[in-house]
Amino acid sequence: MSSEIKRRGLMLVLSSPSGAGKTTLSRKLLESDSAIVMSVSATTRARRPDEAEGRDYHFVSPVKFTKMVKANEFFEHATVFDHRYGTPKKPVTDALAAGRDVLFDIDWQGTQQLKERAREDLVSVFILPPGHDELERRLKSRAQDSKEVVAKRMAKAASEISHWPEYDYVIVNRDLSQALAQIKAILNAERARRTRLIGVGEFAAKLMK
Amino acid sequence: MSSEIKRRGLMLVLSSPSGAGKTTLSRKLLESDSAIVMSVSATTRARRPDEAEGRDYHFVSPVKFTKMVKANEFFEHATVFDHRYGTPKKPVTDALAAGRDVLFDIDWQGTQQLKERAREDLVSVFILPPGHDELERRLKSRAQDSKEVVAKRMAKAASEISHWPEYDYVIVNRDLSQALAQIKAILNAERARRTRLIGVGEFAAKLMK
Repeated sequence: MSSEIKRRGLMLVLSSPSGAGKTTLSRKLLESDSAIVMSVSATTRARRPDEAEGRDYHFVSPVKFTKMVKANEFFEHATVFDHRYGTPKKPVTDALAAGRDVLFDIDWQGTQQLKERAREDLVSVFILPPGHDELERRLKSRAQDSKEVVAKRMAKAASEISHWPEYDYVIVNRDLSQALAQIKAILNAERARRTRLIGVGEFAAKLMK
Repeated sequence: MSSEIKRRGLMLVLSSPSGAGKTTLSRKLLESDSAIVMSVSATTRARRPDEAEGRDYHFVSPVKFTKMVKANEFFEHATVFDHRYGTPKKPVTDALAAGRDVLFDIDWQGTQQLKERAREDLVSVFILPPGHDELERRLKSRAQDSKEVVAKRMAKAASEISHWPEYDYVIVNRDLSQALAQIKAILNAERARRTRLIGVGEFAAKLMK
């Protein structure tokens, strides 16, 4: 932009049903753009062997999690199968204030909660799979799954898909590089949104002097 | 996007003070993107030798212009130094319905009028020059101008600049290719805005079946 014009960071939410390529798109976006960082959730569930503290999750005890909830340290939190998950506020607000963007890989419920708490900073993108057969194929290909398991996954995907009208942007992931380009365009456009810019008034005043 | 998902076109307004590079940016955008066309104004002023009917303007008689005003055929119109200028509606609404975008090179007054008539379709971008000295240099370099002429141009530029807060996006044209990339990002992002997409509901229903 300009050395004199700064910007407030934004919160980029990517949501999609499982099998729409969101994880790959998130990874590629983070690799290609150094001004955006991933939001790391806190969880009470145990760390898996391939997971790293601070990269995949902040692993905290149930007692610590409850303390964080009481101290209002989460943007949003939820309980899934006895485990608690939450988005810590401070790393996000610090990043935004420093003009860095934060990426959220969350579902429609998390998005709704973030929206209530950070409407102005939020940019939400819903990623759709290219078609029914392709979606089914992707949900199957994870393992040698039974029909019941795949049907259950499809039902879960369908439930997530039904929330597309709550998002600012909708992308169909027919081609990975095109979908990535579209997400990058959204990010770069939203960075130039007037309401996020700081110091334009002073810059304009100098132009007019 | 998708063969099944269509989109309504958008109206992209570029405004800036004279000397901010808007004409070059408009031309390059039109050259690089076949889905956007320039809005051609109608005017009652005489055609200049280097101008072409239908490319630079639609040259019409004062009587014809008045008829068009009465028939509500303009989005916006204005009188400048005895000459009348107006943006014909039909080519714009036809393009939008066909999923094509329309570029407008208009000032803040024209933008305000368009906003009142086409809020949902409008995306407005304000382009700022990189600095006071650079702006003055560009306004001077047009000819061997007197101090008074340059001062008058600076005053006019300042008046236009003061309207930046009325725009959706603000760009500083420090580097032409960067500014162009930013305008393209805005255009491509806005094309994926949910509210412009047609048929997502049907597409999503098929995914969920």
